[in-house]
Amino acid sequence: MNPDITPAELRQQIRRGDHTGNTSGLCAGFVQCNMVILPKDWAAEFLQFSQLNPKPCPVLGMSAPGSWEIPELAANLDVRSDLPSYKLFENGEFIQEVTDIKEHWRDDLVTFMLGCSFSFEEALLADGLEVRNISEGCNVPMYRTNIPCRTAGRFSGTMVVSMRPFLAADAIRAVQICTRFPSVHGAPVHLGDPSLIGIDDISKTDFGDPVTLHENEIPVFWACGVTPQVALEQAKPPFCITHSPGCMLVTDVPNSKLAIL
Amino acid sequence: MNPDITPAELRQQIRRGDHTGNTSGLCAGFVQCNMVILPKDWAAEFLQFSQLNPKPCPVLGMSAPGSWEIPELAANLDVRSDLPSYKLFENGEFIQEVTDIKEHWRDDLVTFMLGCSFSFEEALLADGLEVRNISEGCNVPMYRTNIPCRTAGRFSGTMVVSMRPFLAADAIRAVQICTRFPSVHGAPVHLGDPSLIGIDDISKTDFGDPVTLHENEIPVFWACGVTPQVALEQAKPPFCITHSPGCMLVTDVPNSKLAIL
Repeated sequence: MNPDITPAELRQQIRRGDHTGNTSGLCAGFVQCNMVILPKDWAAEFLQFSQLNPKPCPVLGMSAPGSWEIPELAANLDVRSDLPSYKLFENGEFIQEVTDIKEHWRDDLVTFMLGCSFSFEEALLADGLEVRNISEGCNVPMYRTNIPCRTAGRFSGTMVVSMRPFLAADAIRAVQICTRFPSVHGAPVHLGDPSLIGIDDISKTDFGDPVTLHENEIPVFWACGVTPQVALEQAKPPFCITHSPGCMLVTDVPNSKLAIL
Repeated sequence: MNPDITPAELRQQIRRGDHTGNTSGLCAGFVQCNMVILPKDWAAEFLQFSQLNPKPCPVLGMSAPGSWEIPELAANLDVRSDLPSYKLFENGEFIQEVTDIKEHWRDDLVTFMLGCSFSFEEALLADGLEVRNISEGCNVPMYRTNIPCRTAGRFSGTMVVSMRPFLAADAIRAVQICTRFPSVHGAPVHLGDPSLIGIDDISKTDFGDPVTLHENEIPVFWACGVTPQVALEQAKPPFCITHSPGCMLVTDVPNSKLAIL
């Protein structure tokens, strides 16, 4: 894969079935999104949940019911085919993984695109910080916490966080950098003692992979996009589609456009 | 003392000798400054030291040689009489404390006014955070560290820091708030384990008073305006005047003017 491929070209390759793997590291500099597709009668509550919990659940774009376009994020988008892999759920249970959802499409489906940590990790790297999960070539470690989300109708739960270790001065710099990006999880929600947010053992992740914590480093925790997935599992909507992990929508939006300052 | 007194009125009272105590808590909302007065041939090096070490040594204003005015900070200012108390030093040694320096004035003296933590503490309080030294009614705890300052001519040394304890989420918020105020020490320089910056015992302050660290709180450390005073003690200029602790210049500049965002 040519790393300089444009987002539009990559989406075309994915649509044709020429690229089926994950999207991490591709189209550097452009926003990638987590995706949730729900029937219209569940979408309003999910939107409310997102608005009440913007740090774990930042909505960057959403479609009209039945539409596969979100023009503010990507030109000529077809959300039914332009992500490499999709997961289908019925009543909260995983049914199957597919590379195209055209045959499952319904006129009442609403698509949500949510900000993801790739954007702020790029900003941290650009500033010269080391992002441990990237330097160790693994998924970011993620943990369930005791931080409650605000409830919206049938959606509720506790926050899932991702963790990146830093020396204190770098943690302070990371707070400054990520504060500029509120729509991709923003500033960390916690740092230091993991037990204060209900994480008993930092070496045991609930999602993703553990990373090395060097001497003198403190763990820094960000609200994580897995939070809405857990809320969906608990709410058990009759039908739901998400992207497969790592197989994101690659948008036409530069990461720098998300910086508020 | 009427707490609603204007800075101009307070400076007049001080000039007449009607107010000789410290200025903390007076003229809320207005910038107060630490002061250093040096002979011209030492001032250039001190200015360079400040520019190389802007976090502990933020210059908000300086005078022309021999002038007692700094119009960008205060109207009708006479730095020789408008602070409640002054300390005189010769060759780095404290000589005497006086309420007026007119009889010690020289045509080669340059006055520096430096940002102080009162400004960012006000911003923290306004955001609803608790500032422990204020709620416990004592001076902020300050510590010598092993963080080196950059050397400028005869001025060198290590950084002095002030400490305020916070829960982690409030510490993150404090980083965001103080980042807006780079000219009054800005974001913290460290948080968490004090030994990593050379502080062996957090209960033993080098300046100021110890404060309570509650369970689950982490100490957060800011660059402190005592740093240039320590550099002055070590450089031993033949003549030097500073404000007495807590007896600051009260300026006409609203704290909000220092916010960069």
